[in-house]
Amino acid sequence: MRISELSAATDVPVATIKYYLREHLLPEGERTSATQAAYGPAHVQRLSVIRALLSAGVSIADTRRVVGALDSPPGPYDLLGIAHAAVTPDAAGPADPRDTAAADALYTRLGGGVHREESLVAALAHALGTLRRAGFAVPDAVLDRYVDSARSIAEAEIDGIPTSSVEDAVRYVVLGTVLTEPLLLALRRAAQQIVSSARFGGG
Amino acid sequence: MRISELSAATDVPVATIKYYLREHLLPEGERTSATQAAYGPAHVQRLSVIRALLSAGVSIADTRRVVGALDSPPGPYDLLGIAHAAVTPDAAGPADPRDTAAADALYTRLGGGVHREESLVAALAHALGTLRRAGFAVPDAVLDRYVDSARSIAEAEIDGIPTSSVEDAVRYVVLGTVLTEPLLLALRRAAQQIVSSARFGGG
Repeated sequence: MRISELSAATDVPVATIKYYLREHLLPEGERTSATQAAYGPAHVQRLSVIRALLSAGVSIADTRRVVGALDSPPGPYDLLGIAHAAVTPDAAGPADPRDTAAADALYTRLGGGVHREESLVAALAHALGTLRRAGFAVPDAVLDRYVDSARSIAEAEIDGIPTSSVEDAVRYVVLGTVLTEPLLLALRRAAQQIVSSARFGGG
Repeated sequence: MRISELSAATDVPVATIKYYLREHLLPEGERTSATQAAYGPAHVQRLSVIRALLSAGVSIADTRRVVGALDSPPGPYDLLGIAHAAVTPDAAGPADPRDTAAADALYTRLGGGVHREESLVAALAHALGTLRRAGFAVPDAVLDRYVDSARSIAEAEIDGIPTSSVEDAVRYVVLGTVLTEPLLLALRRAAQQIVSSARFGGG
């Protein structure tokens, strides 16, 4: 198909597609004349991944890294790891050593082994630091429930990774990680109100 | 104790305490002379709640509503509901009817009855709308896991509400709702990496 047809098929403006071509996010089409190129289903699929990454707030440079990994897949774990890392914000500065120690313990409780993703441990340490500075101690039973739930959620999510194509898998990891966060938080708040109402007899 | 001692005990500057007094967030101390007042443990406790609310991004007006409820508690469910509502951002505009219907169904799956907190249903609808517009369908098995986990987390959290004083309970609800969100999200991302690594044999 021509670029105009690719645009119609994907709902991405022609000028935007040309921008993605220039930025080497989207591979060139097959030249059919000096001014025209032909695009196929692989371009449609690639565009959906690019849109997913950019709409999740990933930078052009990180998006290029993910689509580069799609072109020469380094094995499923590393590919999904690259996609996951692209949507994981870098922690702001080093964490307090106390928080890093606590984060390390939590990481182990989650089932983490020797292969530690430092950015994820750092994110845990920063979250724990915020609580510590506010003088808020999460009760042990609640923290246990957080750990069990995070593990249980992740297992269902990893089970749900589509096997239809690597593009579908990467799109799922990117959008499934980022866009579902508001849903998870909204569900928890609604559950808090529902459980509280049952417990304290409101309404 | 004097205002300077209250400041030292709570680590809140004297000027800030005076501001809270003027805004009627903190009750006046007992007058001991024309220029001095005495403060007690109730002021220390109240200051910790005020700091918790303001650090969670709650406005002065909403903070006043919560401390007003502390002064004349309307029953535990309503008191905790006021604290919970104060840290729940208003949904931006009306949601799409499709999303509202889906949110209503989710709310029921969570165990919600007739007494619906409209702002919580609206937050769910907006989160579902973001996913729908991105063309991302959460697999049913994953959504079930989200619902079960939200309910399980909320039950542990409500069980953990301190019974030492209403101030402690409100402080727990406010900080426990807001400040733990980054921790929950960081735990889930770490669990995704750990489960993915085990499943796909990375590292």
